[in-house]
Amino acid sequence: MVWLYLVERRSLTGNFSSWDGGGWVLSILVVGSVALDSVETPAGRRECTLGGACTYFATAASLYARVATVGVVGTDFPQEHVDFMRSRNIDLRGLQVVDGRTFFWAGRYGADMGDAETLDTQLNVFADFRPEVPADLRAAEYVFLANIDPDLQIQVVSQMNKPKLIALDSMNYWIYSKKAALTRALSMVDVVLFTEGEIKQYTEDTNLFSAAQRMFDLGPKALVIKRGRHGSTLLTRDENGSLCFFFVPAYPLECVVDPTGAGDTFAAGFLGYLASVGGEPDLVHMRRALVHGAIVASFTIQDFSIDRLRTLTLAQIQERYDALRKMTHFA
Amino acid sequence: MVWLYLVERRSLTGNFSSWDGGGWVLSILVVGSVALDSVETPAGRRECTLGGACTYFATAASLYARVATVGVVGTDFPQEHVDFMRSRNIDLRGLQVVDGRTFFWAGRYGADMGDAETLDTQLNVFADFRPEVPADLRAAEYVFLANIDPDLQIQVVSQMNKPKLIALDSMNYWIYSKKAALTRALSMVDVVLFTEGEIKQYTEDTNLFSAAQRMFDLGPKALVIKRGRHGSTLLTRDENGSLCFFFVPAYPLECVVDPTGAGDTFAAGFLGYLASVGGEPDLVHMRRALVHGAIVASFTIQDFSIDRLRTLTLAQIQERYDALRKMTHFA
Repeated sequence: MVWLYLVERRSLTGNFSSWDGGGWVLSILVVGSVALDSVETPAGRRECTLGGACTYFATAASLYARVATVGVVGTDFPQEHVDFMRSRNIDLRGLQVVDGRTFFWAGRYGADMGDAETLDTQLNVFADFRPEVPADLRAAEYVFLANIDPDLQIQVVSQMNKPKLIALDSMNYWIYSKKAALTRALSMVDVVLFTEGEIKQYTEDTNLFSAAQRMFDLGPKALVIKRGRHGSTLLTRDENGSLCFFFVPAYPLECVVDPTGAGDTFAAGFLGYLASVGGEPDLVHMRRALVHGAIVASFTIQDFSIDRLRTLTLAQIQERYDALRKMTHFA
Repeated sequence: MVWLYLVERRSLTGNFSSWDGGGWVLSILVVGSVALDSVETPAGRRECTLGGACTYFATAASLYARVATVGVVGTDFPQEHVDFMRSRNIDLRGLQVVDGRTFFWAGRYGADMGDAETLDTQLNVFADFRPEVPADLRAAEYVFLANIDPDLQIQVVSQMNKPKLIALDSMNYWIYSKKAALTRALSMVDVVLFTEGEIKQYTEDTNLFSAAQRMFDLGPKALVIKRGRHGSTLLTRDENGSLCFFFVPAYPLECVVDPTGAGDTFAAGFLGYLASVGGEPDLVHMRRALVHGAIVASFTIQDFSIDRLRTLTLAQIQERYDALRKMTHFA
């Protein structure tokens, strides 16, 4: 089994820095925001900490495979963050450094740790971001289009050289303000990661079954429905066009510190696992990938920023994977 | 495997009426409301239809085992409902018939099919209900205390002769207005079926982990957390006192007609399965029982009142059981 093999191989190498130059083929490319975040949750607050969908995704996915980022930062972006990403063997050639300040977001979570209340958004250098995929990175086999303007998502896909799998995230803002572009982007991807509310908003259909069918009619082969503390669902079509459901609960946590990045690291576990397996993604691996998504997200929210991911190991992921199997299987 | 054996045996007998006098040992006793309901949902409305927790539970549980009801109806209670319950081999000796009108409830569900808005409640003969368990029924091995005044739940338990398992349902109203009595009732039972909100309200603890531990400290060995469309969770303690989670999603339905009775028939699938297995309930069977609860509830809400349960078969339950396993298992 490829997954166990990977755990073993990495356990043998001992740590990440030993992979540098180890000849890993680039496998995942992510485009999205790299940001500095100020976050307040019932568990505490952090000022100007490392954030952004691209950052969260790349850090988590780098546990599984070689990752390249496409994004932009300002000249104020701390060198320590660059050094950290390099230490994870993340390819930063697509990360533009532009005169000005890095994208800044400030938000606050309430007692239920549900959706964040945005207190401040300063796009800064992100406002004029035009993604450019360096020639060497266009052969990446897996692509994650994090939640950005769908026109930029399209620009990235157009530059890629036939990836095996493209996954897309978005949000209510783009569904509302750029629906035509989003529809075009959806037609170019294989996996869509939406909340149930986003699926219903996009399709203008309150029935999840028919709404999902409308999404599939656009082109995607799989829908990952993110339900936060209620877990997630993988929706696909069988050979007759009927919906196939696969459910994974959220890994139960006694204490959540900061929900920021849960969705992006969910995507990282999902794509990371598929990339680590390689080959054409089939349903068996997509299901396992969903479990990896749930688990990586569960670690992420146990600390602020990407801090828990700094020390996370594949063995720890495997431990929760086995635990989650026991929490869901019945004879 | 007992479960499959049961399916086979019942398939051979063909229908329920053939069980009458067939020598089945009484195994489940339920106390709760027997009611006439007027219900409005986005799918339609029904006037003065058969309702009440006791009715829903008994009808569904009668698929699995011999059931006896303890409750009260007025002299207006239609004979056809009595005939129907008798046709399910339900023991009605504990169902008092009192001069006056039967408990009446009217409610309306919104587009999300979430909690009902109560439009009218007329307790009628239920106001002075004092449950009496006929001597012959006190040996029932499984007891379901549906959502009624905790003092009445205590009265029923006090009359029973050492059942193997007692399960209790309640609601925010009793947590608020009769907490001392509810606490005493909780100390007398094995399984508590609560929503997460009810657990937190009762324990005055917003952390589910510590709240659950407080519930266990009172005596119950298992908590069934009902999450509606998000499924359900079985919480137990392991030998070290740590929490054990088991998750089951709600069976996905394209169309919900009437959510009334979902919780009571969930309990019926849970207790019914355990009763059909017999013996001391262990964790393996409690998990399977949770799945049965989820499935029986899923059938219930596909029609008004108990109508879907009238034709439901164990083979149909088994079909969804197998389907739900495929929707949750991963290698």
